Amino acid sequence: MNQIKVFAPATVANVSCGYDAMGFALSELGDDMVFTKTATKAIRITEIHGADLPFEADKNVVGVVARLMLEDSQVDFGLDIKIHKNFKPGSGLGSSAASAAGTAYAVNQLLESKYDNLQLTKFAMQGEVTACGSAIADNVAACIYGGFILVRSYDPLDIVSIPTPSELVATIIHPQIEIKTEEARKVVPKSIPVKTAIAQWANVGGLISGLYARDFDLIGRSLIDYVAEPERKLLIPHFTNVKEAAMNAGALGVGISGSGPSIFALSKGMFAAKQVAEAMNTIYEKSGIDYIIYVSNISKTGARLI
Amino acid sequence: MNQIKVFAPATVANVSCGYDAMGFALSELGDDMVFTKTATKAIRITEIHGADLPFEADKNVVGVVARLMLEDSQVDFGLDIKIHKNFKPGSGLGSSAASAAGTAYAVNQLLESKYDNLQLTKFAMQGEVTACGSAIADNVAACIYGGFILVRSYDPLDIVSIPTPSELVATIIHPQIEIKTEEARKVVPKSIPVKTAIAQWANVGGLISGLYARDFDLIGRSLIDYVAEPERKLLIPHFTNVKEAAMNAGALGVGISGSGPSIFALSKGMFAAKQVAEAMNTIYEKSGIDYIIYVSNISKTGARLI
Repeated sequence: MNQIKVFAPATVANVSCGYDAMGFALSELGDDMVFTKTATKAIRITEIHGADLPFEADKNVVGVVARLMLEDSQVDFGLDIKIHKNFKPGSGLGSSAASAAGTAYAVNQLLESKYDNLQLTKFAMQGEVTACGSAIADNVAACIYGGFILVRSYDPLDIVSIPTPSELVATIIHPQIEIKTEEARKVVPKSIPVKTAIAQWANVGGLISGLYARDFDLIGRSLIDYVAEPERKLLIPHFTNVKEAAMNAGALGVGISGSGPSIFALSKGMFAAKQVAEAMNTIYEKSGIDYIIYVSNISKTGARLI
Repeated sequence: MNQIKVFAPATVANVSCGYDAMGFALSELGDDMVFTKTATKAIRITEIHGADLPFEADKNVVGVVARLMLEDSQVDFGLDIKIHKNFKPGSGLGSSAASAAGTAYAVNQLLESKYDNLQLTKFAMQGEVTACGSAIADNVAACIYGGFILVRSYDPLDIVSIPTPSELVATIIHPQIEIKTEEARKVVPKSIPVKTAIAQWANVGGLISGLYARDFDLIGRSLIDYVAEPERKLLIPHFTNVKEAAMNAGALGVGISGSGPSIFALSKGMFAAKQVAEAMNTIYEKSGIDYIIYVSNISKTGARLI
């Protein structure tokens, strides 16, 4: 295998109550990348489509992750890499995570699956350091494992795959404004009342129970974020109206995807998810802000060969 | 049915990471109560064994809960009630909850199951108000539903039953010192860093995943409490030594039962649970403090007829 093409899914991190601990992967939105083995040890990014990202391998998360893995595995080949970004950086849909995790998955394929998913997550987290300054796991883990994931612990890193009911469908609106992850993190309070924390972890318990038990009402009741959303929603135009319209259209729950500005909804079934998309569209079409709406199943697998 | 005898299980609330949100019921430890219908509307507590509790019906949680239910259901009978407490109030094992929830269950039997478990939990919570000043749900819900429960929300009250792997066995040591629930609540910080809260809810997610997936290692890894245990353990003599000895003897995890002073361990299988009991005994037998050690399966049902 000298050349492979991979698909790396977009991901929704936090999932309301699961702030900094949960994420899920989308089926129908993500990046494509082509990796070709070369005889020299050089890593070259030869094409980038869809985003304005650096071609220098040591400044691009793709190059950083590939370099780490080739060095760790002490192989004598290099890579030419073509990147097709199908959703924008700064969307809150795990753009850098798709680059990092997709690379980890792809290089592992070229290394004949030397590493397991946990090790791939650790490599990809180093890409997140390059992209946003901290080794965040929720997006990259969702992108590698697929489905819903829980980052149970960072030290030691412990990723738990949560079963994903196939009826769950995501609707996402991406207003074309940029919110830097760092900025979005600043507005989240540094400490919270214990009562608020209890309410939040009770909902994490409810969401995970709902996913295991395929209890869609419970999933919906649990999709509440008392910690980040009250502050971050102020950075997203029309958030409250979008949420209200989506809930009225039948969404189980609505929240901010990652650090925003994308807003996600989960619905039971494709019909409901499309109605939610229409409701979101109704709010934004009058706004004067450019936006894209996606409707996607939840991907039960992570990054994959195409 | 004019006379019934019920068993109301002891319960472990909090379950480490699930502070104020989770609980489970024991199979082999609990109170017995006998309820007899009478022709007058009076509620009389005719016997109390095993604890020094008030006979006046309006000062005893049993009488309070029974009165509420008879009034709500507008029946024209009264009750004579005999109470056999088989574990002490102030143990951290839900003594008042067993009284309250056992009463709710028993009176409902005499009312031909007029109320569902959620309604019974609400009645029993009023007993908790009488006992400790606040309408706490975790112990009473575990006592009514059985197995592991999650209090997902108080307003509206939402109780989620979590599957309980039959291999799980609890070992409990009850040092015969009293810690008032109110005192134990005071030492818990009013606010916590968001980072701590995230670590806690990641473990709630891990514990609930482990219970659904019968993943005992994951259950064990998730039994960590960053919020209450660091302060409350200081109120419990030899807590750290008991925890260390129990873990070395093979416990999956160890924590404070409710607000203490009882310490619980969860183990996979009865053999391991008994080894944990021996390890706990080794620490306390030299302490000069009276104590009782219980080994019990987790009750998959709550209060029941006997």
